[in-house]
Amino acid sequence: MNVKIIFRVLGFLLIVEGVAMLLAFGIALIYNEYDQNSFLISSGISIFSGVLLVLLTSGTRKEIGRKEGYIIVSFVWILFSFAGSLPYIISGTIPNFTNAFFETISGFTTTGSSIVSDIEALPHGILFWRSITQWLGGMGIIVLSLAVLPVFGIGGMQLFMAEVPGPTPYKLSPRIKQTARALWIIYLGFTITETLLLWLGGMSLFDAVCHSFTTMATGGFSTKQASIAHWSSPFIQYVVIVFMFLAGTNFTLPYLAFKGNLKSVFKDEEFRYYTLFVTGFSLVIFAGLLFSTGRDGEQAFRDSLFQVVSIITTTGFATDDYLNWIPILTILIFVLFFFGGSAGSTGGGIKIMRIVLLLKNSYYELRRMMHPQAVIPVKFNRRSVDAKIITNVLAFFIFYLIIFFASVVLFTILEPDMESSMGAVATCLGNIGPGLGNVGPAENFLHIEPLGKWFLSFLMLLGRLELFTVLVLFSPSFWKQ
Amino acid sequence: MNVKIIFRVLGFLLIVEGVAMLLAFGIALIYNEYDQNSFLISSGISIFSGVLLVLLTSGTRKEIGRKEGYIIVSFVWILFSFAGSLPYIISGTIPNFTNAFFETISGFTTTGSSIVSDIEALPHGILFWRSITQWLGGMGIIVLSLAVLPVFGIGGMQLFMAEVPGPTPYKLSPRIKQTARALWIIYLGFTITETLLLWLGGMSLFDAVCHSFTTMATGGFSTKQASIAHWSSPFIQYVVIVFMFLAGTNFTLPYLAFKGNLKSVFKDEEFRYYTLFVTGFSLVIFAGLLFSTGRDGEQAFRDSLFQVVSIITTTGFATDDYLNWIPILTILIFVLFFFGGSAGSTGGGIKIMRIVLLLKNSYYELRRMMHPQAVIPVKFNRRSVDAKIITNVLAFFIFYLIIFFASVVLFTILEPDMESSMGAVATCLGNIGPGLGNVGPAENFLHIEPLGKWFLSFLMLLGRLELFTVLVLFSPSFWKQ
Repeated sequence: MNVKIIFRVLGFLLIVEGVAMLLAFGIALIYNEYDQNSFLISSGISIFSGVLLVLLTSGTRKEIGRKEGYIIVSFVWILFSFAGSLPYIISGTIPNFTNAFFETISGFTTTGSSIVSDIEALPHGILFWRSITQWLGGMGIIVLSLAVLPVFGIGGMQLFMAEVPGPTPYKLSPRIKQTARALWIIYLGFTITETLLLWLGGMSLFDAVCHSFTTMATGGFSTKQASIAHWSSPFIQYVVIVFMFLAGTNFTLPYLAFKGNLKSVFKDEEFRYYTLFVTGFSLVIFAGLLFSTGRDGEQAFRDSLFQVVSIITTTGFATDDYLNWIPILTILIFVLFFFGGSAGSTGGGIKIMRIVLLLKNSYYELRRMMHPQAVIPVKFNRRSVDAKIITNVLAFFIFYLIIFFASVVLFTILEPDMESSMGAVATCLGNIGPGLGNVGPAENFLHIEPLGKWFLSFLMLLGRLELFTVLVLFSPSFWKQ
Repeated sequence: MNVKIIFRVLGFLLIVEGVAMLLAFGIALIYNEYDQNSFLISSGISIFSGVLLVLLTSGTRKEIGRKEGYIIVSFVWILFSFAGSLPYIISGTIPNFTNAFFETISGFTTTGSSIVSDIEALPHGILFWRSITQWLGGMGIIVLSLAVLPVFGIGGMQLFMAEVPGPTPYKLSPRIKQTARALWIIYLGFTITETLLLWLGGMSLFDAVCHSFTTMATGGFSTKQASIAHWSSPFIQYVVIVFMFLAGTNFTLPYLAFKGNLKSVFKDEEFRYYTLFVTGFSLVIFAGLLFSTGRDGEQAFRDSLFQVVSIITTTGFATDDYLNWIPILTILIFVLFFFGGSAGSTGGGIKIMRIVLLLKNSYYELRRMMHPQAVIPVKFNRRSVDAKIITNVLAFFIFYLIIFFASVVLFTILEPDMESSMGAVATCLGNIGPGLGNVGPAENFLHIEPLGKWFLSFLMLLGRLELFTVLVLFSPSFWKQ
């Protein structure tokens, strides 16, 4: 184990975080509020520690091994969350350490569950910092899942590359750095476009930037207590819907689209199923809302589509409280808690591709029953899927379920209401944001006991890193030489 | 498709059912109650129809093909339930057709969910008929899963045989008839032994027979409203625990044990995990009951063990209402709803072997992550498990979850309380008996609307036949020539 390289990479990343804090400092300066010093101090601590780590580890060899990779990826989110909670604590906006850590890791993991009960009372610098933690987290996960993680052979891209190997139109670039750059540009481009559209729609520029940050990250932090419901403008709500949907697609697809290769986009099976799930769930909920409430057609359509896209992409914005819907519609939303965005998107959760592979394998099994001697592999994007990938997806899914159920059981000790407990665990593990019961869209996580907040923080990390990266650290064979 | 042979087999089985009704007629004669005629008439109708079917289809060829097998297996349960509901309707004990069908299919599928609100008011013949439907269903499923279904290449035995192929000690007999006979003898032997022990413990002979029938079938119908809680005798409760546990084991294991091969029994991995799950859940619930209620050690031990064994084996007897426990214990019981007995037992549900294979595959995946180039198959009973079996288990599990969630969503239209809805669906699909909320151990299914009862009846059948046998009938390729 090359411990030096681990500290060196963590050091570099701490410097990046310190610089990001200076952006929030700029906002605090512009609005001339009381949170200015907190960013200067936090940034100073982060950059100083980062530089120290880099200097102390100079001269180490540069290759990062598989094991070092797992450790860096897991620990960088924890380290970021510790450093990132400093502005909240120092400014006194969230004086309690547990609460500040929860808010920060909820930001970086793009979950969006919050402990803040009066968001509008926060100074602008802090609101901006909340949004930027999500934007950084979202970018981080795209770069990790599409560019860096495949090197370690893990994550959504492993699946994707195994599906589409070799020099196909899907391969963005032969070199990781170029891939990462292309992804940054798309991410940034979408963020700027959404900002302009929201501004045009009547949001203040500040709110537009913050919401674009948290939309593209599928994060869901808002600058308003009422989330997107604060703006009744249909235009704003439709803009957010479109960009949440885009944030939930595989980021190689917009790249292909900009290159003029629209055919590949619409042929992509994961994209087709993603669209199908969104359409199907929205239509059923649309019909349900029309039937059960007095709202007009357009309103029912927009409310259903917004909530479905928000939950399936794991964003967690709200224009309506799905807990006030008739039970069957609430349950449908809860089923969506177990979907998630596309592989290679900023979305969390189980991911559309895994869901589709699991469904396809089951459907193929019926054919296999009719022809027990034949070998009938699952097809995806018109290629046969290796049995290794199916067993990997299976393993992921089972871990996900075990962690979900075991966590619900444990969490029930702190939170006796089963529905709330299920909602809290599902939303944190899936990096969504709002849950059910007393952690629904109209509530927050402040009332949860400290132990519960740490537990949920761990679940956010576990979900964000698609389980294996963290779980492998708990496997004894990992630490054997 | 050889339709004649299908009708011929169904005809033979109807005659068997008609003869079983004569046994209940005998009981009605002994107690000299008003239900005598209902059995005579029902038996007459069944035997007459059966003989007619057999005579009309004489001269057909004798081989049953794969497709005919699926159809016979699915339809025999439906036909049995139609004919089996006649005694309830004719005697006037359950005059409503939907209710009578629900009670009968709940019997034959060994589920044990009931619509009877005053069980003690039923005449003895009817009580006996309720028990005998379960006993026949339980025997049917063992013979099917261990002796007949492997011929069609489906069911738990397929898994089992693939695991333990060739001339091993596990293979009961080279010929199906002999296998079936050995299983009948074990089933009958256990039933008689339990009857004698319960009688010895203070039950009336009638109650002892009825409860032995429904224990060995993992059915759970009782002759008393309070189920086993009616008898406070610890001896009786322990006897029922032991025989529920036995009924949940693979029936080849008692056979091996009687042959003196105890070593193979204790080496069997499914048996070891089964014991482990029972022990683990019981201990946690035992601790929870000690901590949260005033009951003494022995009582807490017995109550926890009884409820755990009753639910994991999918029997559904009760000595306590788990809905009155603290929430975490109730949730643990609900988790057990998704376990089920061993492959080749009378228990329903997902089955221990599938659970263990799913868990093992996930654990092995962590090892695979450390050595991505190596092929690391799952081991079971010290043999490598073929990838085909893993994908089959995966397909089963996913179908189970989809059916569960889709059913909960649909059922919520009729039953708005989510907890009750989840409980009703899980208990019927898993062939258990009691559920959660308003279908808990202290309640029954009478208040559910007719449409809901038909829906739950279908779930019982689906679960009892391990999904595929029924699902394949809905696959278009099945009906293509």
